Amino acid sequence: MTAEQNKVNTHQKPHILVCNDDGIEGEGIHALAAAMKIIGHVTVVAPAEPHSGMSHAMTLGTPLRIKKYLKNGHFFGYTVSGTPVDCIKVAMSHILPSKPDLIVSGINYGSNTAINTIYSGTVAAALEGAIQGITSLAFSLTTYENADFSYAAKFARKLAKKVLAEGLPPDTILSSNIPNRAESEIAGVLITEQGRSRWEEDAIERHDMFGNPYYWLSGTLCLLDDTLRKDEFAVRHNYVTVTPISCDMTNHSVISTLDAWKLKK
Amino acid sequence: MTAEQNKVNTHQKPHILVCNDDGIEGEGIHALAAAMKIIGHVTVVAPAEPHSGMSHAMTLGTPLRIKKYLKNGHFFGYTVSGTPVDCIKVAMSHILPSKPDLIVSGINYGSNTAINTIYSGTVAAALEGAIQGITSLAFSLTTYENADFSYAAKFARKLAKKVLAEGLPPDTILSSNIPNRAESEIAGVLITEQGRSRWEEDAIERHDMFGNPYYWLSGTLCLLDDTLRKDEFAVRHNYVTVTPISCDMTNHSVISTLDAWKLKK
Repeated sequence: MTAEQNKVNTHQKPHILVCNDDGIEGEGIHALAAAMKIIGHVTVVAPAEPHSGMSHAMTLGTPLRIKKYLKNGHFFGYTVSGTPVDCIKVAMSHILPSKPDLIVSGINYGSNTAINTIYSGTVAAALEGAIQGITSLAFSLTTYENADFSYAAKFARKLAKKVLAEGLPPDTILSSNIPNRAESEIAGVLITEQGRSRWEEDAIERHDMFGNPYYWLSGTLCLLDDTLRKDEFAVRHNYVTVTPISCDMTNHSVISTLDAWKLKK
Repeated sequence: MTAEQNKVNTHQKPHILVCNDDGIEGEGIHALAAAMKIIGHVTVVAPAEPHSGMSHAMTLGTPLRIKKYLKNGHFFGYTVSGTPVDCIKVAMSHILPSKPDLIVSGINYGSNTAINTIYSGTVAAALEGAIQGITSLAFSLTTYENADFSYAAKFARKLAKKVLAEGLPPDTILSSNIPNRAESEIAGVLITEQGRSRWEEDAIERHDMFGNPYYWLSGTLCLLDDTLRKDEFAVRHNYVTVTPISCDMTNHSVISTLDAWKLKK
């Protein structure tokens, strides 16, 4: 890896910031925090409410509040009255005494493969970490119901240890999707690319008691990938996927073609 | 360009969907709609309220409403009670009779260069267009005050005509940033990459009348780019920038390094 400075001295216990987009009451963040406590000092900072599909949204028009959150009468972490990205920003500026060694986000209910990478607040929280120069990971479980986070949490701990030892390149996170399966049914771990699978049927029309229409966003994720190198295809075949996601969204491959347009002012 | 099928028959007037993130009352969308009406049939669908910094957020927990918006007593366009991405999704599923030939988003108050590419609702609306297979463009003016959209609107029209004729590669938009200058002061047009410039000082602490703290996200965009190939550096030198932005956020350059980790389940 290129970012030697991101490697952590593994003789010290690393400080790990844990966030998510399902909110502090999401089951996945409790599994993730428990897994991280085995390998480091953990601070949890999560949205007070669920924020799925919030992508990299920030709260600009409303002030944010920080509160302590108790679990079974004991301090568990902090809530922020905003989005996952707000959590990372406020954690870095006003909660943590210094920069953490690692940020982990999740474990999300539902896969963040393919086009969901762009919609995901879980991935965005990790990307905000990378923007601020912190080694960051996002974890998602491929189900919305009957979730079993036990293997996912175990894999998250394993990947966290690996990146703490190896570092990551600047401006790049790893986004991992884990099938909702027992460990014995997991086919393996694949390094993948963001697939092209995307949603169809985007809004359902209904009518209120006055007969006026309203719309709910909805749809089905359609499989448009056909190799194990693509995340959505791989998780559907019971592989854990690990996809390197960059803050740089430039399509570098078309720069020379666009240069040839010779655009004038 | 690779996407021949995205080229429009320029003998017919193209159908252009106009969106933004500043909301239907933002001055920039009126300048952009007027410019597009010179070259095509225009439908405006914009957020009812300002949604800066909303990135690719979708509204999942609340139903959406569509309303007609009048300007000086005449129909101007539709508002959606959600985010810029909601606008594109609802426009495609319930407002437009068929897929538009082009989606243009903006003209945004404030630059969407460098890391703002990720935070921007203006860019996200265009990206949502690309996700749905439509040639899409985003336009931003590099100021929050004393905005003069006249040259920006003229350039938007010029770039729209060019991409209608040439097409764009799949899953890629062009995001253009235009200095808030008279045309005579514009240095030229550059094809650029998303820069690394980013924000510092992320949250201001204040206290309410009860003495309790609250936080406002804030900061300064720090210039971390030093060549005209990077968007933020180029706009600061009075160039119009045109950056190809992709829905694929994979950092392909690190795949082989990660493969070598040989991760086990």
